[in-house]
Amino acid sequence: MKNYFSSDFRLGVLGGGQLGRMLLSETQKFDIYTVILDASNEAPCAQICNEFHQGDLLDFDTVYTFGKQVDLLTIEIENVNIDALEKLALEGLPIYPKPSNIRIIQNKARQKQFYTDHGIPTAQFSHYAYKEELKHSYENSIIDFPFVWKAARFGYDGNGVKIVRNYEDLESLPDVECITEKLIPFKNELAVIVARNEDGKTKTYPVVEMEFHPEANQVEYVICPARIDESVSEKARDIALKVANAFDFIGLLAVEMFQTHEDEILVNEVAPRTHNSGHYSIEASYTSQFEQHIRSILNLPLGNTNSKAAGIMVNLVGKEGHTGEVLYENMQDVLKMDGVTPHIYGKKITKPFRKMGHVTVVNKDIQKARAIAQKVKETINVISK
Amino acid sequence: MKNYFSSDFRLGVLGGGQLGRMLLSETQKFDIYTVILDASNEAPCAQICNEFHQGDLLDFDTVYTFGKQVDLLTIEIENVNIDALEKLALEGLPIYPKPSNIRIIQNKARQKQFYTDHGIPTAQFSHYAYKEELKHSYENSIIDFPFVWKAARFGYDGNGVKIVRNYEDLESLPDVECITEKLIPFKNELAVIVARNEDGKTKTYPVVEMEFHPEANQVEYVICPARIDESVSEKARDIALKVANAFDFIGLLAVEMFQTHEDEILVNEVAPRTHNSGHYSIEASYTSQFEQHIRSILNLPLGNTNSKAAGIMVNLVGKEGHTGEVLYENMQDVLKMDGVTPHIYGKKITKPFRKMGHVTVVNKDIQKARAIAQKVKETINVISK
Repeated sequence: MKNYFSSDFRLGVLGGGQLGRMLLSETQKFDIYTVILDASNEAPCAQICNEFHQGDLLDFDTVYTFGKQVDLLTIEIENVNIDALEKLALEGLPIYPKPSNIRIIQNKARQKQFYTDHGIPTAQFSHYAYKEELKHSYENSIIDFPFVWKAARFGYDGNGVKIVRNYEDLESLPDVECITEKLIPFKNELAVIVARNEDGKTKTYPVVEMEFHPEANQVEYVICPARIDESVSEKARDIALKVANAFDFIGLLAVEMFQTHEDEILVNEVAPRTHNSGHYSIEASYTSQFEQHIRSILNLPLGNTNSKAAGIMVNLVGKEGHTGEVLYENMQDVLKMDGVTPHIYGKKITKPFRKMGHVTVVNKDIQKARAIAQKVKETINVISK
Repeated sequence: MKNYFSSDFRLGVLGGGQLGRMLLSETQKFDIYTVILDASNEAPCAQICNEFHQGDLLDFDTVYTFGKQVDLLTIEIENVNIDALEKLALEGLPIYPKPSNIRIIQNKARQKQFYTDHGIPTAQFSHYAYKEELKHSYENSIIDFPFVWKAARFGYDGNGVKIVRNYEDLESLPDVECITEKLIPFKNELAVIVARNEDGKTKTYPVVEMEFHPEANQVEYVICPARIDESVSEKARDIALKVANAFDFIGLLAVEMFQTHEDEILVNEVAPRTHNSGHYSIEASYTSQFEQHIRSILNLPLGNTNSKAAGIMVNLVGKEGHTGEVLYENMQDVLKMDGVTPHIYGKKITKPFRKMGHVTVVNKDIQKARAIAQKVKETINVISK
């Protein structure tokens, strides 16, 4: 094993947002020297990493030059320059997840095609290079309303996803590469995080249940374990593992899935990194997803993914009508609640629905945890001063 | 409540060692801007705090000037210039723990006198300004061998403590202010951490059991909960609380105690800060001692001190015969063990018995945890390259 701890080993991370910030908490724990690249000097990681570089993650030269200064490269966001990563990989730099995996996952059309090619259950889809193509397809009755539209690239947190119910909706779509999917009714949105290292060793985290905000299409609660039948849970973990193995993935892969009314599991999409659906693990799991990410990319033994207690994450997003310097109203009342831990991402400016932090509720009793989570949500207000 | 989260509030910390480093993990979680003063640019906190100041913690001007640049001041080590703290407090700076408490605790003679004055059970002691006084006391048969000798100031981790069994031992003692205590046979060394905020609200952590290294007089394992009778445990928590209340303490107070063969509890000494005996809490407790410290000094509601599972801390100290750049030998084998989390403090140079890190073992079953802890201890070697 290489000596990563208190050594001159340099870990590079593309992206310096909240995921990077929570990762830093683990690299600090292991005393792994961490170098971060982000476009903004105000990024949540900027002040607390060992070394911060400012630059555009989509610019070839910036990413390439950054890669030359580290011993191993990982990502906390998938929208990065893959050509630079592939050149770096060819020149011998270990990059996890692998650039070829990120390239597929970056583009939802390629991602969906990958599932189809590998026999992974997913909703039927069509792929369009331009909006004109899509309209043409509708006019020729190849697709019909309602359908789900997804931008092929640069979507996040429900951005770039729309339900198209009529021609007006169709007209208002942006003119970008996209996919459409059948609108599938489902019981639950689930997620499973898989860790896989270079040795091909794998661990899956328990299935979580995601409850969405009805308007913002953002996750409001993540509940671990999901309150579903053990057989469905096993199926979901098996499918998530199958996806990770199909990619020959190295690192952490978050697999989002639908549970249909017939208890079928359909893969919705994946993220090649630590994920919002795994934040509960910091307090509730024996090994947090962030520590597990480090373990997996450094080919260390993977940690125990079981939970010490039930965990529920409440997303803290900026309140509508508030833009400006952030204030976490009623935080004191939240801190009074049992087994509650706030995480504040360090963004100075709040905007409507901007992810500003999260609160984890841990309790031996999942129903109690769910009730406390509701109270947290109802109590705290992320507003501007 | 003041707005501490993502605000312009500046938290100052005297000391930038491993305790400060673990504290930073919590201030980062809450996005509290943290400024650290330490004598060494190589201190574990230096690279990862928001702002680092280099300077002598015992120098009046350095501490005073530092204090003028923060909104609230706390400590992670008790050997700091108290005169500067008292001047700052007079000028209105909130300082927790209070300078008057630190002044008493800094000096073991004053500390012992405090227990005696407040009816807190502790071993009988005598106080000497110089070694000559102590020798005189022996020659006049006022004390007899064996006895425990403790330097009144600047002891840590068993430094400054000796068992004096004969005249030769007595002769070899340094000539400093000291106390002597009766050598009391005991069953267990226990510790309780008390959190107390400005509102006078208190929480005690479960009693832990400390197993010491026979030669180095350093804690080898901290076991939570202590494997003792519930009645003894309650008594220990009550006494710890009594100490905190007697001090009118604000912050975290670690109370080390002896359990005698008659199940009496005697207070050995206290630390006015986060403590080695509470490191297990990062993984095992609903609220880690470091988060609790933040909550207590900011007069926030105190968190749940219960445990999610049993926790055992294994200290990682430098191996005898090794001085130089550190290598954590067999770390990979440790990472294979169940429920194991290493914490590496970020010290580049190892020395015999230097505290370099710790490993926490968490398990529902305390006997399993103890067995794994033993394996960790036997497996890892903190050596020089």
